[in-house]
Amino acid sequence: MKIAVYPGSFDPVTNGHLDIIKRSAKLFDKVIVAVLHNQSKNPLFDVKERLDLLKQVTEELPNVEVDCFSGLLVDYVNQKGIHSIVKGLRAVSDFEYEFQMALMNRKLNADVETVFMMTSSEYSYLSSSLVKEVFKFKGCIKGLVPDEVLAAMIKKYRE
Amino acid sequence: MKIAVYPGSFDPVTNGHLDIIKRSAKLFDKVIVAVLHNQSKNPLFDVKERLDLLKQVTEELPNVEVDCFSGLLVDYVNQKGIHSIVKGLRAVSDFEYEFQMALMNRKLNADVETVFMMTSSEYSYLSSSLVKEVFKFKGCIKGLVPDEVLAAMIKKYRE
Amino acid sequence: MKIAVYPGSFDPVTNGHLDIIKRSAKLFDKVIVAVLHNQSKNPLFDVKERLDLLKQVTEELPNVEVDCFSGLLVDYVNQKGIHSIVKGLRAVSDFEYEFQMALMNRKLNADVETVFMMTSSEYSYLSSSLVKEVFKFKGCIKGLVPDEVLAAMIKKYRE
Amino acid sequence: MKIAVYPGSFDPVTNGHLDIIKRSAKLFDKVIVAVLHNQSKNPLFDVKERLDLLKQVTEELPNVEVDCFSGLLVDYVNQKGIHSIVKGLRAVSDFEYEFQMALMNRKLNADVETVFMMTSSEYSYLSSSLVKEVFKFKGCIKGLVPDEVLAAMIKKYRE
Amino acid sequence: MKIAVYPGSFDPVTNGHLDIIKRSAKLFDKVIVAVLHNQSKNPLFDVKERLDLLKQVTEELPNVEVDCFSGLLVDYVNQKGIHSIVKGLRAVSDFEYEFQMALMNRKLNADVETVFMMTSSEYSYLSSSLVKEVFKFKGCIKGLVPDEVLAAMIKKYRE
Amino acid sequence: MKIAVYPGSFDPVTNGHLDIIKRSAKLFDKVIVAVLHNQSKNPLFDVKERLDLLKQVTEELPNVEVDCFSGLLVDYVNQKGIHSIVKGLRAVSDFEYEFQMALMNRKLNADVETVFMMTSSEYSYLSSSLVKEVFKFKGCIKGLVPDEVLAAMIKKYRE
Repeated sequence: MKIAVYPGSFDPVTNGHLDIIKRSAKLFDKVIVAVLHNQSKNPLFDVKERLDLLKQVTEELPNVEVDCFSGLLVDYVNQKGIHSIVKGLRAVSDFEYEFQMALMNRKLNADVETVFMMTSSEYSYLSSSLVKEVFKFKGCIKGLVPDEVLAAMIKKYRE
Repeated sequence: MKIAVYPGSFDPVTNGHLDIIKRSAKLFDKVIVAVLHNQSKNPLFDVKERLDLLKQVTEELPNVEVDCFSGLLVDYVNQKGIHSIVKGLRAVSDFEYEFQMALMNRKLNADVETVFMMTSSEYSYLSSSLVKEVFKFKGCIKGLVPDEVLAAMIKKYRE
Repeated sequence: MKIAVYPGSFDPVTNGHLDIIKRSAKLFDKVIVAVLHNQSKNPLFDVKERLDLLKQVTEELPNVEVDCFSGLLVDYVNQKGIHSIVKGLRAVSDFEYEFQMALMNRKLNADVETVFMMTSSEYSYLSSSLVKEVFKFKGCIKGLVPDEVLAAMIKKYRE
Repeated sequence: MKIAVYPGSFDPVTNGHLDIIKRSAKLFDKVIVAVLHNQSKNPLFDVKERLDLLKQVTEELPNVEVDCFSGLLVDYVNQKGIHSIVKGLRAVSDFEYEFQMALMNRKLNADVETVFMMTSSEYSYLSSSLVKEVFKFKGCIKGLVPDEVLAAMIKKYRE
Repeated sequence: MKIAVYPGSFDPVTNGHLDIIKRSAKLFDKVIVAVLHNQSKNPLFDVKERLDLLKQVTEELPNVEVDCFSGLLVDYVNQKGIHSIVKGLRAVSDFEYEFQMALMNRKLNADVETVFMMTSSEYSYLSSSLVKEVFKFKGCIKGLVPDEVLAAMIKKYRE
Repeated sequence: MKIAVYPGSFDPVTNGHLDIIKRSAKLFDKVIVAVLHNQSKNPLFDVKERLDLLKQVTEELPNVEVDCFSGLLVDYVNQKGIHSIVKGLRAVSDFEYEFQMALMNRKLNADVETVFMMTSSEYSYLSSSLVKEVFKFKGCIKGLVPDEVLAAMIKKYRE
């Protein structure tokens, strides 16, 4: 069985992420969406909330699981017995950085392969941080994040 | 009347910015140079000082106005009834970032068009932060910023 | 009156080109779409046919004119008394090449300004040559070119 | 069963190609290496020779098949009932071009997914055309192509 | 005598840095590896420790000296009567930034020339910060830094 | 003695090339400007004419020699006992290509080092082919090529 991990902060998961999740779910027998602990210092959502949102938005995808990890991705991947990492590519700056990380991960674990998938061009400008910034200044983010995420953001900011 | 907004931090305005202001003033009937509030945490000049310097260095340009804004650029542009945003391009890294922002702004307001203009190649290495760093270490920044800005920087650091 | 020229081979005009034409027509008082003579050795359409197609697809745009030129763009622009060149940007490779041409044009005529506009992301992969290649191998190009162009391509290949 | 096609000219197959073939063979249940007919006007090896060389160098890989196709890749992929295309990435210029092709292929067939894999950094400078140029000027290409290819090139040039 | 300075933070020196040091030592009569003071707020090693490590790993290179500086690189270079700066290039993002710095340095001192050398492709993914992050999460960094540096990092973290 | 070769087609030598020649002549004890035979199919100037023009424009530079070569650059460099190749960098697309060639040359001869120097930003848009195209359409190329080259181009086209 071909399993892949799709790692990230997902603070919050955007429609660009969801696009990659759906595409990779067609490519692999199972995809584990793995939330990285502790990456961002002031997260909007804590890891538990992010896992909940990811579970909600991937509910219809039977071969997608949601998990979290801390430490090195290659260690997590090793423990799980997984050999493939999925990354979404949007633009050149993504590519440079992701290429560097993929080469480092390959050095740390020669058995691990990073597979790059292309985000739909309609989401080529999307990132979690840009979504948060737009939302903070009351810009409309409908269509940029799943409805469940939008609802959670509204709730979070009103509290 | 074709009006454009040229947004930025302008902390401080450099000769690269002034180059784009002059070029865009030939292209549009009116150009509003708009200083973004609150972007940088530890600015060298506060917004009022930046507006004053911009006014001084654009005094000879009758169709250039200076203003400030906070929040989303598309909201500011909307309130003003403007449909064009001018951005200066220097290099690939600029391009990637500016492209992302322009696509997001287009999504937030389909009527707004971002227009990219090419900084003169003699200023291709210039940025406000690099100017500040060079100045801090007593490097000569004559020719990199307008004389009024140089005078203000000397005054500011001597105080 | 602010006039701009949008130069190209337009062999044939694609929906990506048409997107830039429409965007620039909002930005300038008049836009001249200028077909370059002699650029491609084995064109699909000759210059007259390209002009005809451009006229058809821009019929609804009152401030868009269609013309052709040979020789240097800066000379054409000079004769017309125009000061602005519009170019569409899709990706980094575009940017590099267009930047080089724009700097050369600025050297040849300091009064001419090149203005870059962003193609809609849904057309970011489009080019005339790619369209022709796909069509040659019987791929469906509906949605990639205006209907008039599609009809002309079908007619041309059947003859 | 997850099947992918790895398309190319393979004139000749290099160790960079072979690296991607081996990596993709671990990722998918079956990989079809597909030689494109007619792409290059003056090929070094004809399609039959290229297929033979590919068969020799992939002999040890049980889930790798070798085939050829002409026309559009999406049509070939469709006929075979395949949904994944594998492409190797070396550098930014690769990335731009491959991204454009992948978006066009996605437009032509929404079911087809392009998956990018990273060539080993030791082969990051390799291309078939560079190998041929070096060989033509009697440079040593040992280590750049499989031994079978080297032998075939020597034989071909001596004839 | 042709002398060059190779500036950096070297916190810590990696095998990528050492590769550039060795290459530049063949190119110039003397190379001064110059550690920049105060660049990083929370360094792993202080400047004295970094100088010690650099001395250890360059011991076998008779024409390499180790030094430190603060302030502007062009001022340091001026005081030393040096006209060449060596920088290692790995990827496009490096290139953009380094090009900007080199143009600024040329503006600040027209006599100073920046010379770019290519890091070995096997180190193309290496950076001091990535090494520190991997080490922090207990990843194996053997082969990424000189043995002396690895020993010092182990000692530092155990303290 | 540190010797470097600066290879190219030089059809014709531009002020951008001359800029790199002068900069490298300060860096090395001797610089050999080496014209590549046979690279371009329809050259403007034949190799003898190019050598003559290069000799004229480098007359004042005592440590610059002019030569020609055919075949692989690494073979030429080897015969001459040279270990350094100088290349000028203008933009990202240059960088990608030059990086690829430099890695191939390093593979072919591990002793050869490619050194990249930065063209003055005022020549960042210059290339021999662009100069020829502008000249062909009667554009003014004064300031883009040395006066001797301009005179030779006028003479050549009038013949």
